[in-house]
Amino acid sequence: MALIVHKYGGTSMGSPERIRNVAKRVAKWARAGHHMVVVPSAMSGETNRLLGLAKELAPARADDAYWRELDALAATGEQASSALLAIALQAEGMASVSYAGWQVPIRTDSAYTKARIEAIDDTRVRADLAAGRVVIVTGFQGVDALGNITTLGRGGSDTSAVAVAAAMKAAECLIYTDVDGVYTTDPRVVPEARRLHTVSFEEMLEMASMGSKVLQIRSVEFAGKYRVPLRVLSSFTPWDIDIVEEAKSGTLITFEDDEHMEQAIVSGIAFNRDEAKISVLGVPDKPGIAYQILGAVADANVEVDVIIQNISKEGKTDFSFTVNRGDFTRTLELLRTRVLPGLGAQEVVGDAKICKVSIVGIGMRSHVGIASKMFRCLSEEGINIQMISTSEIKTSVVIDEKYMELAVRALHKAFDLDQTPV
Amino acid sequence: MALIVHKYGGTSMGSPERIRNVAKRVAKWARAGHHMVVVPSAMSGETNRLLGLAKELAPARADDAYWRELDALAATGEQASSALLAIALQAEGMASVSYAGWQVPIRTDSAYTKARIEAIDDTRVRADLAAGRVVIVTGFQGVDALGNITTLGRGGSDTSAVAVAAAMKAAECLIYTDVDGVYTTDPRVVPEARRLHTVSFEEMLEMASMGSKVLQIRSVEFAGKYRVPLRVLSSFTPWDIDIVEEAKSGTLITFEDDEHMEQAIVSGIAFNRDEAKISVLGVPDKPGIAYQILGAVADANVEVDVIIQNISKEGKTDFSFTVNRGDFTRTLELLRTRVLPGLGAQEVVGDAKICKVSIVGIGMRSHVGIASKMFRCLSEEGINIQMISTSEIKTSVVIDEKYMELAVRALHKAFDLDQTPV
Repeated sequence: MALIVHKYGGTSMGSPERIRNVAKRVAKWARAGHHMVVVPSAMSGETNRLLGLAKELAPARADDAYWRELDALAATGEQASSALLAIALQAEGMASVSYAGWQVPIRTDSAYTKARIEAIDDTRVRADLAAGRVVIVTGFQGVDALGNITTLGRGGSDTSAVAVAAAMKAAECLIYTDVDGVYTTDPRVVPEARRLHTVSFEEMLEMASMGSKVLQIRSVEFAGKYRVPLRVLSSFTPWDIDIVEEAKSGTLITFEDDEHMEQAIVSGIAFNRDEAKISVLGVPDKPGIAYQILGAVADANVEVDVIIQNISKEGKTDFSFTVNRGDFTRTLELLRTRVLPGLGAQEVVGDAKICKVSIVGIGMRSHVGIASKMFRCLSEEGINIQMISTSEIKTSVVIDEKYMELAVRALHKAFDLDQTPV
Repeated sequence: MALIVHKYGGTSMGSPERIRNVAKRVAKWARAGHHMVVVPSAMSGETNRLLGLAKELAPARADDAYWRELDALAATGEQASSALLAIALQAEGMASVSYAGWQVPIRTDSAYTKARIEAIDDTRVRADLAAGRVVIVTGFQGVDALGNITTLGRGGSDTSAVAVAAAMKAAECLIYTDVDGVYTTDPRVVPEARRLHTVSFEEMLEMASMGSKVLQIRSVEFAGKYRVPLRVLSSFTPWDIDIVEEAKSGTLITFEDDEHMEQAIVSGIAFNRDEAKISVLGVPDKPGIAYQILGAVADANVEVDVIIQNISKEGKTDFSFTVNRGDFTRTLELLRTRVLPGLGAQEVVGDAKICKVSIVGIGMRSHVGIASKMFRCLSEEGINIQMISTSEIKTSVVIDEKYMELAVRALHKAFDLDQTPV
C-alpha cells in the first residue's frame, strides 16, 4: 500500500467520456490498495476560453489588480474539472472528495499568474486518505498569505502534482499525458525516435527547457529538488490495462546517477524554432557592457536564452544572444533606439529565421569529444553553425531554421539513438 | 455618498459586451460618489452547462459527497463572472476587486445546493470601499464552518445581494434583471398589465411564491427580515441613462405598511400551472390522518403547496393537496401503493391539468368581500373553482388549466389593475 499521485492533463480531462476513463483508471489503482491523490488540469480549451473572455474585456491591462482577477478567473477551470472527477469517481463507487488550492491549502507567494508554491498542508488530505477516499487536489492554483487565489503559470498542474508528491513523500508521481513518454527526439521529425525507459532528471530539465513540452520545466526542477520519482505515461492506454504493466510504462525520471553510467552518452536531441538571434556588433570591450545591453532587455521583461560574447579584436567585440521570436522586433527596436546610442557600438543586427538544436546526455560529463562529434556531423551535412553554447550535459547550436529537420535526423543517427541500447 | 448594492442576473452578464455595459453602469454609480458593492450571477447558460456535465457523469447520485462536489462545480460559474466584471471595471478605469464567497467570507450552513447564509464578515469589503475600489462579491455561494464551498440554490445570487446589503446596512439593493419591474400580472397574458412603482414586501413574497420569477423567494424573505430597501429594475436600459431617473425606475419593494393604506386593495394577479392536484377520498376522519398522508409525501422529498381538508360526512372526509407537476405521477403511485392500504381510505385521484390563480394585496387585510368578488368574477366567466386557499393577503383558487388566461384577464379587469391608481 503506497501513496501514489496521478496527474492528468487537459486532453485526458477533455470530455465527460474521458473524465470517466480517468475515474476508472484511478479507481483501479485505489482498488489495488494504493492511497490515491489525483491532480487534474482544466478540461482542454477551458483555460483559453476564460482568458479569451478577459482579453476581450481588457486587451491592454497589465498590473497586479488585473492579474489577481485573471488568476481568480483561470482557477475556475481546474476547480470545475476537479469536482467533475470527484463526481465521476463516486459514480464508479469510489469515495472521493476534491479540494481547491485554498482548501488544501497550497500556500504560494503573491506573484499572480506565475506564483511559486511555498508550503502544502497535507493534514486534510491525509485524513481523507485514511478514511478511504480518493483525494482530488485542484492543480495549477494556490492561495497567498492574504487569501488571494494565485495560479502557477501554464502547465502549472504538473508542478502542483510534483509539489504534492514531494510534500506527502509519495512513492511515485505519475504524469498522465497525451504522449506515452519521453523520446530521444520528436517522432514527428525523426520516425526512428525511441521512447526512453528512464531519463535522468538533469537531462529532462535540459529537454524541457528546449521545448520538449512533455513536462513544465518548473515541475522537473521541483522533482529534482525533492527527489520525487516521476513517471510520464499515456492516458490513452485502455484504463483496464494490467496495473503492473502500467506501472512500468512510459518514462521514469530518475535521480540515481549511477544507474546511468552504463547508458548512452547522448540521450536525446532537443530543438526549437521559437527563438531569434540578435547581435550587437563592434562593442567597445570594457567592463559593464553585458549589463548595459542585457539590463535594458531584462527591464523590458524579455527573456534571454543563449548568450555569447566573442573574444575582442582591436578593443571591440561582438555580443550575441537569443530571445523568444515573439520578442524579436521589440528587442531589436529597443536596442537600436535606447541602448546603441550610449554604447558606442557599431550596429545591431538580427535574424529570426534560426533554430536551436541540442544534444542532451548526462554521459557527456565523463566523455570527451562529444561536442566535436556533433560539429563534424553537422559539417558533413553542410550545415553552418552560427552560435555554440555548452553546459555540462548539453551542447546547443544555433543554425539556419531551414536545416532543422536535417540536423536533428543526422544527429539522431550519428549518436545511434535509433538503436536500442544493450 | 451612500452604500449601494447592485445585483446583475445571468442574462445581464451573458456576453463580454453585456459585462462591459454592466461595468459602465456600475462605474457611473461609483463616479456619482456611491460606495458600490456588486453581486453578479454566472454568465447565462453557464450553470446549466456545468450541471449538465455532472449529470452526464453521475445521472443517479444523491448524497452529501455528491452535492458537495456539485456545489464546488457550480460555484465556478459565478467566480468566473465576478473576476470578469472586475476586469471590465478596471478597463473602464475603475479600481475593482472580486471576492469569492469564501474570501469575504459569506458563512453558510452545510446544506449543499440549498445552503443558508449565517453570517457575513464585511471587514475586507469595507476596507476596499474605503480605498476607493468597487467590490465584486461573488453571488450564489458561501463557505461552511469546515471550509467547504456551498451554494444557495437557484437564483441564490439575489439572496447573496440582499444578505450583503443587510449585513452592510446598504442604502438600497438594486436587482438588475431582464424585466423592468414587478407587474400587476404577466404582460404576456394580460397586455394591459401595469408596472407597479412600489409593492409591499408581503405582496412580493406571495407573488414570488406564485411563480412570478422576478426574485428568488428567499431573497425577499431576507429583505423583509432585515428591512433592506430592494428595487427591481432593468439592465437593458442604456447604461448612461440619467442616474436620478434610473434610481427611481423599476419597482421598489417597501416595508412601511402605512404607505400602502391608500393603495389599491389588490396589487396583482399571480398564477402558475406547475402544479397538480391529488385527492384522497373517503378517509376515516380521525387524528393523525394528515400526517399519515403528508408524512409519506414529505419523506419522498415532494413539496406540497395548497392543502385542503373538507368537513367530514359520516365519519369520512376528503383530503386534497397540490404538488409540483413533475412530482405528480410519483406521488400518486406512492399514495396508492404505500399509504392507501394502511389508511382505510376509499381511493386516490389526481388531476395534472390544473392551474392556480391568486389575487394578492396587502389591502385585503383591512377589506372584506375581496374573496367573494373574486369568486363572483370567476363564476360570471363560467369557471368552476376546484380548491380555495386563503392567507391574510392572498386568495388562491385552483381551476382547470384551460381557463387560466381567461381567469387572469377577467380578474385583472375586475380589480381595476389596468387603471393607474390615483
